[in-house]
Amino acid sequence: MPEPNATLASGLACPVPVTEYDRVQLGHGSGGKMSARLIRERFLPLFENDVLRRLGDGAVVPHAGPDLVISTDTFVVHPLEFPGGDIGSLAVHGTVNDLAMMGADPLYLSVGFILEEGLPFDLLDRVVASMARAVRDAGVAIVAGDTKVVDRGKADGMFINTTGIGRIPPGVRPDPELVVAGDVLISSGPLGRHGIAVMAARGGLGLAAEVESDSAALHPLVALLRDRIGGGLHALRDPTRGGAASALNEIASTAGVGIELAEELVPVPGVVRAACEVLGLDPLYVANEGVLLAFVAEEAADEAVRALRSHALGSEATVMGGAVAGHPGMVVLRTGLGGRRIVEMLPGDQLPRIC
Amino acid sequence: MPEPNATLASGLACPVPVTEYDRVQLGHGSGGKMSARLIRERFLPLFENDVLRRLGDGAVVPHAGPDLVISTDTFVVHPLEFPGGDIGSLAVHGTVNDLAMMGADPLYLSVGFILEEGLPFDLLDRVVASMARAVRDAGVAIVAGDTKVVDRGKADGMFINTTGIGRIPPGVRPDPELVVAGDVLISSGPLGRHGIAVMAARGGLGLAAEVESDSAALHPLVALLRDRIGGGLHALRDPTRGGAASALNEIASTAGVGIELAEELVPVPGVVRAACEVLGLDPLYVANEGVLLAFVAEEAADEAVRALRSHALGSEATVMGGAVAGHPGMVVLRTGLGGRRIVEMLPGDQLPRIC
Repeated sequence: MPEPNATLASGLACPVPVTEYDRVQLGHGSGGKMSARLIRERFLPLFENDVLRRLGDGAVVPHAGPDLVISTDTFVVHPLEFPGGDIGSLAVHGTVNDLAMMGADPLYLSVGFILEEGLPFDLLDRVVASMARAVRDAGVAIVAGDTKVVDRGKADGMFINTTGIGRIPPGVRPDPELVVAGDVLISSGPLGRHGIAVMAARGGLGLAAEVESDSAALHPLVALLRDRIGGGLHALRDPTRGGAASALNEIASTAGVGIELAEELVPVPGVVRAACEVLGLDPLYVANEGVLLAFVAEEAADEAVRALRSHALGSEATVMGGAVAGHPGMVVLRTGLGGRRIVEMLPGDQLPRIC
Repeated sequence: MPEPNATLASGLACPVPVTEYDRVQLGHGSGGKMSARLIRERFLPLFENDVLRRLGDGAVVPHAGPDLVISTDTFVVHPLEFPGGDIGSLAVHGTVNDLAMMGADPLYLSVGFILEEGLPFDLLDRVVASMARAVRDAGVAIVAGDTKVVDRGKADGMFINTTGIGRIPPGVRPDPELVVAGDVLISSGPLGRHGIAVMAARGGLGLAAEVESDSAALHPLVALLRDRIGGGLHALRDPTRGGAASALNEIASTAGVGIELAEELVPVPGVVRAACEVLGLDPLYVANEGVLLAFVAEEAADEAVRALRSHALGSEATVMGGAVAGHPGMVVLRTGLGGRRIVEMLPGDQLPRIC
């Protein structure tokens, strides 16, 4: 007999966190609180060093020459193909964006494939072609690669790791620590499309409208912001796993500021809103792969929005809130009715294997 | 009813390549001919660029400042722990060694974990601690990380990608293209221990003697060779997947020279030889993780062996053959009885998931 929430949609997992404290759970990969705890308790104490401790989207490493940024990301999205992208384009965009969020120009990628025995070559070829297109469009080069094959049933088709190297141009270096009360929070576009597109591709959602993933390389937007508002650009984050809520909680905590969102300004497309209502999800926790959140100095906000809107990827850029002196470390949503609700970091697992 | 070769040892796969031409097979991950073909036919044409085309152990990237080397490797070894190491130490040594084989000093690593839901934390903790020890011993730093979790049954406990960045000191830059007829081939130690240790850890081999993996970070040996013979150091390769046979075939092909091995000089420990006889394996195809093969100028050979033997990791260094003008692109073993046998690249799959 199916469990109550299994009737919602086949293939749609919405697990209640179980308390198997001695084992890895899906929620440990969610990008939310459980992920943060896993890293803080099990990895950091052993791998501790000054660079890693910052836990940014990438690592700035000391080096003779311009500063280099390194970022790594493994992609386990299921299914491998979805409207608007596939694991290949996602693996390029995800790591390029992590570099871009550090203010860096992405230069090089390495690619590590884990292929499951029996994976059809035509699927592999489509993914590789999509990766190659994404790399070309982003103006980066894949310079190193590795391929492993595991037995049937020991992987899920294919997993891809990409690790990126970028260069930070002198001058502007966005960092969550630079965010101060009064800063304006801008979203470069509407939220929630990637997560909903992937969920829809799992089938059984019964969603009438097709949602496409927003997956895209965002470094052109970062270059525009750098050029147009310079040091007025304080922090950048791409709200992927864990959604905008988790990204903003991280920034609030790092910067020691409060963050306020104005509900009526949070850009959620109608199809995403509708899908979230059906699924019982909160759009603020749904993953994005083609949206950046920027904290900019108040006086630079108008110019920042104009800069973003001058590019196709940022044509729907909008102010959605800002940093405040009250409730430091906390994200609060002001609702249309004048209420306030605390937006917590994703506690466990909302949408597993979304990237 | 078990297939004939299944009686050899439970858990020991020795598959005959099947001709499912439209799908990924285990042999595509073997590091031999099938791997090379997969990369040449399916990846390179799409990812083509000058750096990637060289297909070295790592990639030297143009950069303002000292030359940087990037290398990536994903580890899917089964079982996760084996005598002499585990997937964690292996993931550090493997990538550090790939950088070292380019003549580089390893500096930074990124780590990407794929964890299977249900993985016991005590196992994860052991692997992470082992990784941390290996990182400390190698004098490198983990600067970026990522963790993904996939559902039960969708991975095999844990997979780890490490991507490394190293710096090539000015002066010596080993490269298979520098190998010329007359060069001497030196092995820094005995062959085959890693592969046999992992196979034994799978159980059911009935091997009396315990073999430990040789897994180790080899950059101290490279630094010694660089310092002591300088430009006399022509090429380096760590014979991992596909073993010495595959590594030497790659060098013969790149350099356009023949390679001759003297059977009586090839350093195979008795326990490895015995295990290979039981298993029907050729030690030249068994993976190593703590051995380097060096091609050095004839006049530098004695000093190179002395340099290697001055370090614990190279205490059993020995000349095992050399490059010749005859049979370019081909590796030939001169047997004790005066015979000659062509040593081909690993055609398909001998030891799956050995690293």
